Amino acid sequence: MSILVVGVIAYDTVKTPVEIRHEVLGGPAVYFSLAASHFSPVSVTAVVGSDFRENDLQMLRDHEVDVTGVRRVQGGKTFRWVAEYGERFDEAHTLDTQLNVFADFKPSLLADARRSPFLFLANLDPDLQWDVFNQLDQRPMLVATDTMNLWINDKNDSLQKVIKISDTLLINEAEIKQLTGEMNVVRAAQQLLDQGPSMIVVKRGQYGSMFFTNGEVFAAPAYPLETVVDPTGAGDTFAGGFLGYLAGCNDISIDSCRRALIVGTVMASFAVESFGPERLSLLTGAEIEERYAQLWRLTYFDQSGDRKLPLRSVA
Amino acid sequence: MSILVVGVIAYDTVKTPVEIRHEVLGGPAVYFSLAASHFSPVSVTAVVGSDFRENDLQMLRDHEVDVTGVRRVQGGKTFRWVAEYGERFDEAHTLDTQLNVFADFKPSLLADARRSPFLFLANLDPDLQWDVFNQLDQRPMLVATDTMNLWINDKNDSLQKVIKISDTLLINEAEIKQLTGEMNVVRAAQQLLDQGPSMIVVKRGQYGSMFFTNGEVFAAPAYPLETVVDPTGAGDTFAGGFLGYLAGCNDISIDSCRRALIVGTVMASFAVESFGPERLSLLTGAEIEERYAQLWRLTYFDQSGDRKLPLRSVA
Repeated sequence: MSILVVGVIAYDTVKTPVEIRHEVLGGPAVYFSLAASHFSPVSVTAVVGSDFRENDLQMLRDHEVDVTGVRRVQGGKTFRWVAEYGERFDEAHTLDTQLNVFADFKPSLLADARRSPFLFLANLDPDLQWDVFNQLDQRPMLVATDTMNLWINDKNDSLQKVIKISDTLLINEAEIKQLTGEMNVVRAAQQLLDQGPSMIVVKRGQYGSMFFTNGEVFAAPAYPLETVVDPTGAGDTFAGGFLGYLAGCNDISIDSCRRALIVGTVMASFAVESFGPERLSLLTGAEIEERYAQLWRLTYFDQSGDRKLPLRSVA
Repeated sequence: MSILVVGVIAYDTVKTPVEIRHEVLGGPAVYFSLAASHFSPVSVTAVVGSDFRENDLQMLRDHEVDVTGVRRVQGGKTFRWVAEYGERFDEAHTLDTQLNVFADFKPSLLADARRSPFLFLANLDPDLQWDVFNQLDQRPMLVATDTMNLWINDKNDSLQKVIKISDTLLINEAEIKQLTGEMNVVRAAQQLLDQGPSMIVVKRGQYGSMFFTNGEVFAAPAYPLETVVDPTGAGDTFAGGFLGYLAGCNDISIDSCRRALIVGTVMASFAVESFGPERLSLLTGAEIEERYAQLWRLTYFDQSGDRKLPLRSVA
């Protein structure tokens, strides 16, 4: 099954305690589609400026990402983001955001895109997310939505509308607390499950992720890395692995979602090993399967849950 | 196999955003031994004052905890700790510590204790931990050690000696970073593995725990709770479940350690559901096995790691 992603394509300037890199290809739509492309056809709806490098578009095409929905605005400038990470790599401090061509972005879906069975509404103004949803010819099998603190603060009503029509909300831990006003993640997820979505994915960075449905909880650790080069795009790459796996299997059962979360974890672990999508763009299927096996080994402790423990009969 | 624990027994006054409780039974030795007693014989070496309540000692005896090594100092006062938790329950803010009888504590092991096959050196002045180790008649099968920021700062040389002779160091995430000067947990654990211990357990509170040996890594999530009443003692309860399981099985293989970490997680999840060790003291074996099964379900995603993923042959 194919996936439509609508979201930002950007050039990022990223400073870490080790290095600074200027004008690296980035943006949620890029990370998401590269990750998902390993498992499923993906098409991107986005906008870039006339400064967008042809080899960046070609790299996406080389990964069989359908970029016919990427509009190039002549004379316009591509989205720019400048950010800095501290020693713990746990949070990006945005130094500058220039919307450029995204300031006037009115997503217009091509005919094929309007019938996509999987939709990823990457972090965008929720009014645009809503507009995209309403252009669809039919309800997708799965609508997954991401957001950020800015929209939770400034466009809460619009965001609530989008959440209601989403099957899956992918949200980081700080955001779910902000969105629900609830400091306990289990209760926060339950609150969102009561609003429409049937699955909530809470991204916890280096602590992994949690997946909630009504009645099921699944927890995935992060892949333990000795060296993180640049965390930019990890969340979108995670989403790409997650949705890519589900679409590739054409199976959104709970058990498939559990594995999809692990695949998302695997893909995110590669994303942070380089600046920009470089590592992702060079990734082989064998590397993905190897890391999936390592995650299995990382979390395995028993063949089943009904082990008889060596319990004493204490009072 | 039996376990010797040497550590503080205390009366705690704990304030949470919801409630305040005065003079609750606490201290690492209490939480540890109650948790471990479900799986293995435990004996405690500690000191209390003449104010120590007889029913608290009796509760430990009722759980078949051997308290013959708990010395009562006539006219002395039991250790006191006063602390407060914020809304996220993620860190205790110590408001007051009164060592009282622990100020002059010189642990003196009874004959049986000196031959214990398992030893838990709970968080204590590392000079005392060292002294305990040197009273042993024979090297235990497993020496596990806990510590805290105070000793890392003030008694680093003494602590380094204790780490060298420990098989397992149980340490929380902030402490391992402080101890090693390394912000990456994987590298921090490797640094400690190079100093003597063959296993490092990193406790991450609500994010679970990680277990490192030379060549193996295991990650356990925390049990997701909707309501945390009081996190006090969670780490020591975790250690009690971990060591209790290993001693109860008489098996310290890697696979046993993986399950032990889950048992520690299970026990810690009960500890935080009440003030003090109340929930732990009323716990049944069936409840422990049920939560073990829930943790299995929480982390299960595949029968093995060699799944063929639905990979496309993208460039």
